Amino acid sequence: MSFSLCTSWVWMLLFLGCTLGQSKQTRSAGSDVRNCTTVPPYLPSTVTNTAERLQALRQRMQFYKIRAYIVPATDAHMSEYIAEQDARLAWMTGFTGSAGTGVVTLDKATLWTDSRYWIQAERQMDCNWELQKAVWIPSIGEWILQEVPAGESIGLDPFLFSIDNWKSYSQALRNSGRNLIPIDINLVDLVWDAQKPPPPTHSIYALSDEFTGNTWQNKVSEIRTQMEKHPKRPTAVLLSGLEETAWLFNLRGDDIPYNPVFYSYALLTKSNISLFVNQSRLTQEALQSLTAGCPGPLCVRLEDYNKVKAHLQNYVQGDIRVWIGTEYTTYGLFRVIPEEKCLQESYSPVMTTKAVKNTKEQELLRAAHVRDAVAVIQYLLWLKKNVPLGSVNEFSGARYVDQLRQKMEHWRGPSFETISASGLNAALAHYSPSNVSSRKLSVDEMYLTDSGGQYLDGTTDITRTVHWGAPTPFQKEAYTRVLMGNIELSRLVFPSGTSGRMIEAFARQALWKVGLNYGHGTGHGIGNFLSVHEWPVGFQSNNVPLTTGMFTSIEPGYYQNGEFGIRIEDVALVVETQTEHKVGDKPFLTFEVVSLVPYDRNLIDVRLLSAEQIQYLNSYYKTVRQHVGPELQRRQLQEEYEWMRSNTEPFSQGVLVAASLGLLAVTILISEFLSNLQA
Amino acid sequence: MSFSLCTSWVWMLLFLGCTLGQSKQTRSAGSDVRNCTTVPPYLPSTVTNTAERLQALRQRMQFYKIRAYIVPATDAHMSEYIAEQDARLAWMTGFTGSAGTGVVTLDKATLWTDSRYWIQAERQMDCNWELQKAVWIPSIGEWILQEVPAGESIGLDPFLFSIDNWKSYSQALRNSGRNLIPIDINLVDLVWDAQKPPPPTHSIYALSDEFTGNTWQNKVSEIRTQMEKHPKRPTAVLLSGLEETAWLFNLRGDDIPYNPVFYSYALLTKSNISLFVNQSRLTQEALQSLTAGCPGPLCVRLEDYNKVKAHLQNYVQGDIRVWIGTEYTTYGLFRVIPEEKCLQESYSPVMTTKAVKNTKEQELLRAAHVRDAVAVIQYLLWLKKNVPLGSVNEFSGARYVDQLRQKMEHWRGPSFETISASGLNAALAHYSPSNVSSRKLSVDEMYLTDSGGQYLDGTTDITRTVHWGAPTPFQKEAYTRVLMGNIELSRLVFPSGTSGRMIEAFARQALWKVGLNYGHGTGHGIGNFLSVHEWPVGFQSNNVPLTTGMFTSIEPGYYQNGEFGIRIEDVALVVETQTEHKVGDKPFLTFEVVSLVPYDRNLIDVRLLSAEQIQYLNSYYKTVRQHVGPELQRRQLQEEYEWMRSNTEPFSQGVLVAASLGLLAVTILISEFLSNLQA
Repeated sequence: MSFSLCTSWVWMLLFLGCTLGQSKQTRSAGSDVRNCTTVPPYLPSTVTNTAERLQALRQRMQFYKIRAYIVPATDAHMSEYIAEQDARLAWMTGFTGSAGTGVVTLDKATLWTDSRYWIQAERQMDCNWELQKAVWIPSIGEWILQEVPAGESIGLDPFLFSIDNWKSYSQALRNSGRNLIPIDINLVDLVWDAQKPPPPTHSIYALSDEFTGNTWQNKVSEIRTQMEKHPKRPTAVLLSGLEETAWLFNLRGDDIPYNPVFYSYALLTKSNISLFVNQSRLTQEALQSLTAGCPGPLCVRLEDYNKVKAHLQNYVQGDIRVWIGTEYTTYGLFRVIPEEKCLQESYSPVMTTKAVKNTKEQELLRAAHVRDAVAVIQYLLWLKKNVPLGSVNEFSGARYVDQLRQKMEHWRGPSFETISASGLNAALAHYSPSNVSSRKLSVDEMYLTDSGGQYLDGTTDITRTVHWGAPTPFQKEAYTRVLMGNIELSRLVFPSGTSGRMIEAFARQALWKVGLNYGHGTGHGIGNFLSVHEWPVGFQSNNVPLTTGMFTSIEPGYYQNGEFGIRIEDVALVVETQTEHKVGDKPFLTFEVVSLVPYDRNLIDVRLLSAEQIQYLNSYYKTVRQHVGPELQRRQLQEEYEWMRSNTEPFSQGVLVAASLGLLAVTILISEFLSNLQA
Repeated sequence: MSFSLCTSWVWMLLFLGCTLGQSKQTRSAGSDVRNCTTVPPYLPSTVTNTAERLQALRQRMQFYKIRAYIVPATDAHMSEYIAEQDARLAWMTGFTGSAGTGVVTLDKATLWTDSRYWIQAERQMDCNWELQKAVWIPSIGEWILQEVPAGESIGLDPFLFSIDNWKSYSQALRNSGRNLIPIDINLVDLVWDAQKPPPPTHSIYALSDEFTGNTWQNKVSEIRTQMEKHPKRPTAVLLSGLEETAWLFNLRGDDIPYNPVFYSYALLTKSNISLFVNQSRLTQEALQSLTAGCPGPLCVRLEDYNKVKAHLQNYVQGDIRVWIGTEYTTYGLFRVIPEEKCLQESYSPVMTTKAVKNTKEQELLRAAHVRDAVAVIQYLLWLKKNVPLGSVNEFSGARYVDQLRQKMEHWRGPSFETISASGLNAALAHYSPSNVSSRKLSVDEMYLTDSGGQYLDGTTDITRTVHWGAPTPFQKEAYTRVLMGNIELSRLVFPSGTSGRMIEAFARQALWKVGLNYGHGTGHGIGNFLSVHEWPVGFQSNNVPLTTGMFTSIEPGYYQNGEFGIRIEDVALVVETQTEHKVGDKPFLTFEVVSLVPYDRNLIDVRLLSAEQIQYLNSYYKTVRQHVGPELQRRQLQEEYEWMRSNTEPFSQGVLVAASLGLLAVTILISEFLSNLQA
């Protein structure tokens, strides 16, 4: 998936890709579905009355002597998905979209969100809230400068802002005479109070060795080795990303949707390990795993989740240096650490180590993708049979593919909300159907489905776009060019250490050539039964260089406003490749695609493909047959097996030659050949 | 050219490309040509005795209570080339290479430089100087931490360090208990004193309208408009890059080698223009041009070059905001400006405006390249005739091509030191021959020549690699793949606003495919009778996005250590292109190559090229014929004309078809065709 219900740094960075080059639109444009000028205002029935909440919040703001309060849509771990207890922005505004920022002053309240959510926001917010059609912190800053007089203060909860976000707000207000004030108590929580949903209580469990490939003790030792080797000699690593603790300790939970993680922090020193988590939620087995080495350097001391700040305050009294990842550590924790005792890097060593999967993890991810391919193939065949009957809509389709995955071994849930979009709905690159508004699938429209599963052995994410009738020539061309982009990046050979940013244009070249493009990023890392968007791997400018063992999605697309949308997404492993020559010591790399579902032949215009692209496709088809074929047969899915076989027929050598020639060249060659015969 | 005598930020950034992925080597390795362990030490006759200089410097250091002093190799404008008066590092060390940093403590002296200069440094420095084989500021910082105890201070001249370099040193020493002290008086100058070369005295002249396409008054008005439109409302722009003042005021000088600029600063406010320059050096015409509008907002007030700091100190007392380019403004000027009054962007609006050439400038650059192509074609033909006679060496070749350019209209000098490298010498991507050591050119070796001219109408830079005998299959393959890289980037279509970094890998793909690569950047901006390396255009991560009207070099290469080197460099203009479809409002772009010299057909393996690449080559050949043909004929260079014609013969359609097929595919097609005939 390239778009999701995401509120956080992960999504913001993908969005940077999306809006690249778009003009910054900062004012509401077009007609609001609300009419706030009449008395009483006209409002859809879907709005939430926020008058009382705002009044209560403003009272708190006055108590703290602030003129504006910023409410973000994330949690204290900069998570992409958040639990209900963290849905403060939704509660304050009525708006339930995943991305946005609210700012409340003593007389105004404004929500900033991106184009995906403009209509939804107008349908859900009452007239107390104004909508700003932008997401850039500088535009929020400009608004604050207009609304808040110099000499006054703006408050925020420092535990809901990353260091980088805090700096952006500081920058926007710098030298303006306004003060940005961190207030440790969350003012929305004070108002929400008794109505606030309780913290999650699901148990936190240990992932068995067969799904990890490495004990947590080994992982801890590896991280400690990296600490020792670091020239700045850190004495501790602070983990505040939920994926970090889950991965390091081989634990999983169900605290937030789609990602099997749990609220926690950790402080790992050379001799101690403190895990901040609600201890009562650990299963017996998990507890035993963590404490088996006690006392000793591989003993995990369990401390209360809420104690992390106090513990850190105490720790930094000593002669220490704490290594943090600035991309996702909150300003609230950061400011506890004296500057000279803080080692700031974009990512912690846990984040970068996790990014490189070990051999066992690679095997597991491959296996999960084979089962996932079975589910998607079942779905595509089902669609082929049922769409012509008019019995499928976007929502029922999404539900069905989720159900197919559910039957697979090791399934634990979807890895994000399934995107199932027909016709013009797919042009909104992010779109999820609901029970109340869902378009019927038709043989006359293209259909895009982007979905994934959480399995104990891996996380999957795949997008296929299909057409069961007669696509227009332009639809075929656009689809083929998206596929060419997918192929060109997938088959690229590049030196170890190349950054994703340097090569992502190979996924765009075929589109660019004819004046087309897509407005989102080209891919993201993916976890082993962890986040479907796993940093720091990917093709954005702040991703780390690509090395063997990393997994990333590859997902070019094309979106024709009001008509159709195309995306072709696979997950691929970075692998070493043998080259004819070799310069330098470092290996050359390429991608091994592990998503194994055929592309729609009805949409491929073979004439556009180069001979090498056709060869690549044929080789991919062979891999699908080799890996998914036996699995389909084992499950006695004979019809699916036949469908897969017919959709992975190699393109003939004749087609291959014709493709590489074009008609003109064929003619010339044949005439030359004939004239040679005559000579 | 991709490498040059360059000491500055420009080169350092190219070098980032060069060393990408190389392991950081910080200690001397291999045998030093010096033997400093014997008494007396063994030293080459080429070393400079630095004992007295060092002693004198150390006395000054003690006076200023510093334990280490950092001596860089640049000037107060972060120039790529420097005048003799600024060659402080060379004078202190004896080492005359263009890139390096010296650090002197009370008992040690160490030079950091990159691999191009290791041997030269050991030949030129006496045993007072140690060589460190690295260029990274963090490695210099580590050394300082070892040599300077906590509590002590390290000094530097803040006018010789950019803001960013200052920050890097600060970062390297942060929280270490050592203090970095800016000392406005340069300590090397105090010691150098009477021996120091005098400042340049050449006159500074106005460039006539026929060579600018815009009056300086219009340029000033444009910059003022940008100031007014900027949301941060700057009241002034500070210009400290020498290209900035030269371009803005349509003036040129000869203060530093190769670049026609002059020592100066400027402060441009909404109502005033102050140019800091030695007034007596201006020609009458230049003086008149600058002062014709006095008094008034388009009157240039001339102030002494040395008054810039005092003037700025006075200016910042007011309610002002100064816009500076942080990539090249010195810390010395930066620290005069209170933080809240400083608008920091990577580049000033003069730098970014200059980067986009107006229509007249584009025409001029094209015209300069046509004359330049004549000179290079004359040279290549001369080589072809004389190399087999054994009468040419690298140095005489370099001199000859310089002389050919000298005969061209508007010639003002070479745009950098000509690179002329035969056989294994070309594997040192940067290499210039000298009178004392110069390799004979031979039909048995490849030869690389990278050279350019300064003409009143433009600056040129072109590299061609040739072989007059029988290249090995690997040499042909490598050359052809470098050419494929040049072609793939040159013919790429991409959306307006794409950064060079995102597309430079197209110049590498053909090499990567077989495990080859090159270790330098892929291109750089170029001026109109200005710098041959003109920022901020290019393919590095800190270059600005590409837009219509920018010129950049495109110069992939391949270097086989100890054997040969290949680089194929052209200058290209970014132009709009029409695409079959079009998404969004912004134009799609491509490159128009303006360097018009045929590539060496003896080194092209046509079988490796795709049909599209051959078509591109044929179209390039046509352009060369159209533009250079008439010029050669006008000059009655008949033999050169014939040579050009025979080297721009289009590849036949048959070749084109064969290339797109490969032999196997041809066979298949023909057999299919025959079987159809039989059927």
